[in-house]
Amino acid sequence: MLRTHTCGELTLKNAGQEVTLSGWVHKNREMGGLTFVDLRDRYGITQLVFDANKDKELGEKAAKLGREFVIKASGKVVERSSKNAKITTGEIEIIVTSFEILNASKTPPFTLDENTDGGEELRMKYRYLDLRREPIKNNLLNRHKVAKAVREYLDSKGFADIETPFLIKSTPEGARDFIVPSRVNQGEFYALPQSPQTFKQILMVAGFDRYYQIVRCFRDEDLRADRQPEFTQIDCEMAFVEQEDILQMFEGMVKHVFKSVRNIEMGNFPRMTYADAMKYYGNDKPDTRFGMLIHDITSAVKGKGFKVLDDAETVGCISVPNASEYSRSQTDELIEFVKRPQIGAKGLIYVKYGADGSLKSSVDKFYTPEDLKKWADAAEAKPGDLILVVSGPAAITRRALCELRLEMGTRLGLRSKSVYNPLWVIDFPLLEEDKEAGRWNACHHPFTSWKKEDEHFFETGELGKIRANAYDLVINGVEVGGGSIRIHDRKNQEKMFNTLGLSKEEVELKFAFILNAFEYGAPPHGGLAFGLDRFASMTIANEENIREFIAFPKNNAGRDMMMDSPSTIDAAQLKELGIKIEVK
Amino acid sequence: MLRTHTCGELTLKNAGQEVTLSGWVHKNREMGGLTFVDLRDRYGITQLVFDANKDKELGEKAAKLGREFVIKASGKVVERSSKNAKITTGEIEIIVTSFEILNASKTPPFTLDENTDGGEELRMKYRYLDLRREPIKNNLLNRHKVAKAVREYLDSKGFADIETPFLIKSTPEGARDFIVPSRVNQGEFYALPQSPQTFKQILMVAGFDRYYQIVRCFRDEDLRADRQPEFTQIDCEMAFVEQEDILQMFEGMVKHVFKSVRNIEMGNFPRMTYADAMKYYGNDKPDTRFGMLIHDITSAVKGKGFKVLDDAETVGCISVPNASEYSRSQTDELIEFVKRPQIGAKGLIYVKYGADGSLKSSVDKFYTPEDLKKWADAAEAKPGDLILVVSGPAAITRRALCELRLEMGTRLGLRSKSVYNPLWVIDFPLLEEDKEAGRWNACHHPFTSWKKEDEHFFETGELGKIRANAYDLVINGVEVGGGSIRIHDRKNQEKMFNTLGLSKEEVELKFAFILNAFEYGAPPHGGLAFGLDRFASMTIANEENIREFIAFPKNNAGRDMMMDSPSTIDAAQLKELGIKIEVK
Repeated sequence: MLRTHTCGELTLKNAGQEVTLSGWVHKNREMGGLTFVDLRDRYGITQLVFDANKDKELGEKAAKLGREFVIKASGKVVERSSKNAKITTGEIEIIVTSFEILNASKTPPFTLDENTDGGEELRMKYRYLDLRREPIKNNLLNRHKVAKAVREYLDSKGFADIETPFLIKSTPEGARDFIVPSRVNQGEFYALPQSPQTFKQILMVAGFDRYYQIVRCFRDEDLRADRQPEFTQIDCEMAFVEQEDILQMFEGMVKHVFKSVRNIEMGNFPRMTYADAMKYYGNDKPDTRFGMLIHDITSAVKGKGFKVLDDAETVGCISVPNASEYSRSQTDELIEFVKRPQIGAKGLIYVKYGADGSLKSSVDKFYTPEDLKKWADAAEAKPGDLILVVSGPAAITRRALCELRLEMGTRLGLRSKSVYNPLWVIDFPLLEEDKEAGRWNACHHPFTSWKKEDEHFFETGELGKIRANAYDLVINGVEVGGGSIRIHDRKNQEKMFNTLGLSKEEVELKFAFILNAFEYGAPPHGGLAFGLDRFASMTIANEENIREFIAFPKNNAGRDMMMDSPSTIDAAQLKELGIKIEVK
Repeated sequence: MLRTHTCGELTLKNAGQEVTLSGWVHKNREMGGLTFVDLRDRYGITQLVFDANKDKELGEKAAKLGREFVIKASGKVVERSSKNAKITTGEIEIIVTSFEILNASKTPPFTLDENTDGGEELRMKYRYLDLRREPIKNNLLNRHKVAKAVREYLDSKGFADIETPFLIKSTPEGARDFIVPSRVNQGEFYALPQSPQTFKQILMVAGFDRYYQIVRCFRDEDLRADRQPEFTQIDCEMAFVEQEDILQMFEGMVKHVFKSVRNIEMGNFPRMTYADAMKYYGNDKPDTRFGMLIHDITSAVKGKGFKVLDDAETVGCISVPNASEYSRSQTDELIEFVKRPQIGAKGLIYVKYGADGSLKSSVDKFYTPEDLKKWADAAEAKPGDLILVVSGPAAITRRALCELRLEMGTRLGLRSKSVYNPLWVIDFPLLEEDKEAGRWNACHHPFTSWKKEDEHFFETGELGKIRANAYDLVINGVEVGGGSIRIHDRKNQEKMFNTLGLSKEEVELKFAFILNAFEYGAPPHGGLAFGLDRFASMTIANEENIREFIAFPKNNAGRDMMMDSPSTIDAAQLKELGIKIEVK
């Protein structure tokens, strides 16, 4: 080793020892013939002292060291006169007697401190420098701890870590597949897995009983800020289980991870039906750190001659506590908020429910205080609340109120980073209608089973009413995982494919292997998957910022800025694969 | 859960308990109104008894159960009259009072016993059935144990498990890349990694100090029996190290794995130079479980008028102990062995060194016993040995003697499955000449550093003499891992690319990111990678049969027989990607 110790371990106990350290020049300053260098490695920072008064050559060479130079220095550990209590090694320094420059460094294009001056593009291009920064470094080291805790738990519960293939068959569902041309079989293609879904089910048919894998998945989607074309999944499946067994098992896993990594003890996870989540929170991943529930007040507002509300499909509201004194400019800001194109509401009506019980609104022309009292009652508002009312088509109204609720929660400081509120959302619908395409899609995926008591809705054609045996784990409004009890017999699986509008030929071509497998003793089974990037981000930082938890993320255009990829390739390579570029 | 216990846990201690088991009907036999079912799950087999005398309906339903039906059965644990000492549950049976068929099964197309009657093709197509077989199931469960032991060790040594991307840039080296067309950037392509080589080096530049990953790698090679287009690597890298540190660290890892998984204590690993391995064993991965070293006897055989040997570039031999009594047909068989096209030798000369000291050969016409004594001395042969002599071009002679040695080792039972002989092979050459293409290739890869003392051979043009800081770990003749100390400065890396004949433009296009990274404080670093498929196969079974240790392997044509992949894809999918099929 080019060192006897790391830069993070020497303390007063080592005083007097001759040591050798290697690392990066973090900071470098001169004072009266002395050069002080903060030498940094993954484990910490140690102060080196080069004394030009004692060794002129050494001192001069040290004075020339630039930021991020890599050096190996030997010397004696001594007690420091001015100690630094912030770091473990702050009580000592090394009086260097000899050193060697292992590698020089150009000046980094941005500072490598906790808060860097580097913009996103630059940081992505020089990712190897960005990764030296303390917060990003710790994110990745902590991500490892999350994965390790997951493995510990699943290993202890008898789950077998079994690897599934990456070069599989293209069976696009929802998202697009990335495909891989085959050279040996020209004109044919592999696909990269969107998830190991069918393989884990096959492993249940094979009798492995409990499976897990921490595995890369691929989706060729149009990218959004929080999406990556490749992402990592904690993928799990169990045989001979019912929904309750899975919820218990993975609630245990999450508790174990939070205890191991953050020393946080979590209580039992509450549960909420999809229907209630949509009704009271406006989406299927409620942030339950605060209340401010959505209320439907449609029937309370109609019939007073105000056309906007009289004609509205839905009228809903939230009651914001202690905000009845909001100024005109504050309420105007909220109106602009819901009118943003991402939300698309037409506007916002507000009712100020004064602490004295008075009721004033932006629609006083149409509604008396007595009318407004009915609104307030329907909204379960209290004196001092600001009631924010949105009207219009149900979906837009719901979205607007959902976003407004989250925005007000943030503004009022109700979304604390020190609070974790996990929640199981259950009873998802099985199917959702794509009216444009004139068909039904699987909400979760086509392998999800349905509740037996809803079976009759297949016959009545009320497909939207069929509830799936599907569940999501939501933490503070972020969906970190989800899964379902699967179909495990050929007949029901065919019924599902048929309901989704797949032809017999299509089914045969894409899914013959799993339908066949179901005919050879497939056990009842189910499972779930956690997004590791998101789960790590939530566990470590209580925020959803996955790029800061991935060593080499891609940008919004799916590009790796460091490697400059994707890129063109040799014509010869394409020829071998039997493909040709034909850009439209 | 659809069970109270697994099929592997009930013993006499549970006698009298009411239990519910779920699993597969492994065997089913009737005897005087009693139906006995061996119920199987991942954990074991438990005998169920259905008594038609007590419950006719139950008995009749049980009698109809077919092989591999999935059932859930409840009843009482009782002591068995005829016990089965071979299985944990062999002292009890369950008197079933009720059961349910969870899923039926067609009759499997092959038997699911330890030794199946199913051919390779059929087993691959119905992989979910093949995986139910005890040996394959155990292979995969033990593979998990190997990976787990690897993680335990590396975690304990401070290695950080950091994930690297799968959608990277095409930089083909040696093997071909699999490529992935980009839809968002039409005409451009990602490549799947042949290994995370450059990323792990970047992580060292980023200061992570110790990295590992158990990660899938991809090579689009023409397939051989023991190759898969995708395979798993235990990928490791360390900063501030020299070769010795790496050998020590990973010797420790292998010892830990063997101790954990097999309870085998390994002594310290011997080391051998590449030059000695080639000289004495004829290849760079010697099986050192037995001696029978190769000797060069070129100078001892020349000048006696036998043209074959007089003209030969090289004459080499091995001395096979206690084989001087081999019959004519046995020696003829060995002659055919070396003449096989895979080996390509012209023939074989033998000398029988009798236990009485007599010397007889297949070339007695040209050589007196005194001449042959010189051969025997040069070969370090002992009375009783059969000396097998091969002559011809050096490379073919070496290969023939290498294969002959292994064959004789097998025939004489010297390659015991209960013996593990690990070996570090060191001092590999840096470069090898491709005479046809008129260029030099990297033996390991272009990021490997060379020994400083051999630097001058760059100037003299004796490139073949430059030794690399590269090493392989060989166990019983199987290469399970290998690595090197890397180049860590831009100048030497450019020198290497230049030596390999890459143009400046090519280097800039493919490797700019790593050359740039080397300019910002790259530490000295090195590492290695183990092939997990091979390492698991060796650890568990002491044989190289990777397909039996992969859940879903591909066949020799790179096809997944179960999924039937690769396959054709929709024209619309290709159009979106901006590519067109043009099969030649």
